[in-house]
Amino acid sequence: MTATIHRIGRATPPSLDPLMTLVAEDMNSVNAVILDRMQSRIPLIPELAGHLIAGGGKRMRPMLTLACARLIQYMGTRHHKLSAAVEFIHTATLLHDDVVDGSGMRRGRKTANIIWGNSASVLVGDFLFSRSFELMVEDGSLKVLKILSHASAVIAEGEVNQLSAQRRIETDEEQYLDIINAKTAALFAAACRIAAVVAEKDEAQEQALDTYGRHLGIAFQLVDDAIDYASDEATMGKDAGDDFRDGKVTLPVILAYARGNDEDRAFWRAAIAGHKISDDDLAHATALLRRSGAIDDTLARARHYGQRATDALGIFPASKAKDALIEAVEFAIARAY
Amino acid sequence: MTATIHRIGRATPPSLDPLMTLVAEDMNSVNAVILDRMQSRIPLIPELAGHLIAGGGKRMRPMLTLACARLIQYMGTRHHKLSAAVEFIHTATLLHDDVVDGSGMRRGRKTANIIWGNSASVLVGDFLFSRSFELMVEDGSLKVLKILSHASAVIAEGEVNQLSAQRRIETDEEQYLDIINAKTAALFAAACRIAAVVAEKDEAQEQALDTYGRHLGIAFQLVDDAIDYASDEATMGKDAGDDFRDGKVTLPVILAYARGNDEDRAFWRAAIAGHKISDDDLAHATALLRRSGAIDDTLARARHYGQRATDALGIFPASKAKDALIEAVEFAIARAY
Repeated sequence: MTATIHRIGRATPPSLDPLMTLVAEDMNSVNAVILDRMQSRIPLIPELAGHLIAGGGKRMRPMLTLACARLIQYMGTRHHKLSAAVEFIHTATLLHDDVVDGSGMRRGRKTANIIWGNSASVLVGDFLFSRSFELMVEDGSLKVLKILSHASAVIAEGEVNQLSAQRRIETDEEQYLDIINAKTAALFAAACRIAAVVAEKDEAQEQALDTYGRHLGIAFQLVDDAIDYASDEATMGKDAGDDFRDGKVTLPVILAYARGNDEDRAFWRAAIAGHKISDDDLAHATALLRRSGAIDDTLARARHYGQRATDALGIFPASKAKDALIEAVEFAIARAY
Repeated sequence: MTATIHRIGRATPPSLDPLMTLVAEDMNSVNAVILDRMQSRIPLIPELAGHLIAGGGKRMRPMLTLACARLIQYMGTRHHKLSAAVEFIHTATLLHDDVVDGSGMRRGRKTANIIWGNSASVLVGDFLFSRSFELMVEDGSLKVLKILSHASAVIAEGEVNQLSAQRRIETDEEQYLDIINAKTAALFAAACRIAAVVAEKDEAQEQALDTYGRHLGIAFQLVDDAIDYASDEATMGKDAGDDFRDGKVTLPVILAYARGNDEDRAFWRAAIAGHKISDDDLAHATALLRRSGAIDDTLARARHYGQRATDALGIFPASKAKDALIEAVEFAIARAY
């Protein structure tokens, strides 16, 4: 497969480097806030939180807040604390997700729930979540608090929705989009939108950044869900085929099931119900996904949302920040190739 | 045992009835907010949350907010939404606690984690927690947001601290008080304090209500921890001896261990480590607790904090609300007798 949305004339594959360079200095400040505010007199809290936070995540969401602030030429520093708040919400969600999914690996390392147990992961997640609200309160913007408290409720709803859809082969593309909109895209959107709020930009710019973040988030999740079937553990940093074994009905499965013959459908029903979990079953699933074009078309959907993300930036004049945000979209999609 | 702090001349045992009567009308409004705001288009959320919320809890914390507001003659309605926010924080904490402890019974019914599983309990807890912040943001007081986001972080810290102390017989009274201050008393204190904030009373009144709530919370938890050894399942509404089997080092155990001979201490070490979990072991533990005076003295400590709660109300003039709040303290302690 070859990525088809590279801009003509690009010599190298799309990368996150321009985004990372753009926000590097700001990110040092954000990291300082993160390290400072994950502390507690209870040693287990920084120990467990630090394992995940230091564990090589991309800090995608705080990067987006910082880059969007740059895009609209915000000159202050309020976004440092708020970027840390966004990352804390994300980290809390990951800790709880790994408990819910019983995951053993993330970012190429053992998960916190494996090392310290489910109870500690649940409670430290609660701590980080509370701490994120303390950071927002210190900033003092009720508008930011509204955006992020709403995003948090939507994320939790999305996670419960996903749990309800698990092992249900009847899940359709609409419900799937609804789930990833909530569990992933809502925080991407909020991370981008709050940049416009602290910069006191008009509603149109707020909305444009929200749309950029939301569609980037959907594209990101679509690609993640494709990669879960199209990659190996070493590349992915987590257990390959996790979604398959967990009975998660992601878009690749929805498309392959819809397009399959009776035999294929019987296989998917059994697999999603949890009766086909061997490596051979996973190999068979992957073969069905490729043969039906389900992986390719999941990535085509991702390109569609990626294009919408890019187009949402149309109202902003050309700048390094704009280029970096557009290349981040291309990077999100190119990860699959 | 006989309760010794009944005021002279009281013909009937102390009761929560005066408090409940005082706030009954306000509580109808709070219940309406709770029912309205626990809704979601994801059916599992109101189903699971409703099981616990409708499950016969006393609504102690919202009652305290309402009664404190009455005490200081607050005439508005902002405290209805905020009382619901407090109850949502508490409910989220209970859902996560029952997962952490693997509890099977609460308030005389099966726990949500037993019926719907740990994952659903974790995620619906997260939803209620987020929703509580949405309610606070709607109210719009940054001061209330600060008090309750800080209380939430302290609660989570207390829960992690408790987890770290579990199965550690070396836990001392100071660490125990630190834990119950955080996991229980912080939200009691915040629930009372925010009444003064919405009523725009001075710092001295805020502080007095905080102190009342905090000491009542400590007394409540001390009595709960005594009851866990001194009651049966039917009275308690949860599994008797849960703390014992979970290896939780509560004050009765700390006192009995400190006062025991070598043989007693060996028993406690083995029990807290998880090697003595039969009904006979529990009966032996209860006998040691009674013989060493550990239960009586835990209740004496509770009376001490109860007295401090009552004395904190000294700055407020006599009123029905004050009488009801004082009787609530007496009720909290009399539950043990």
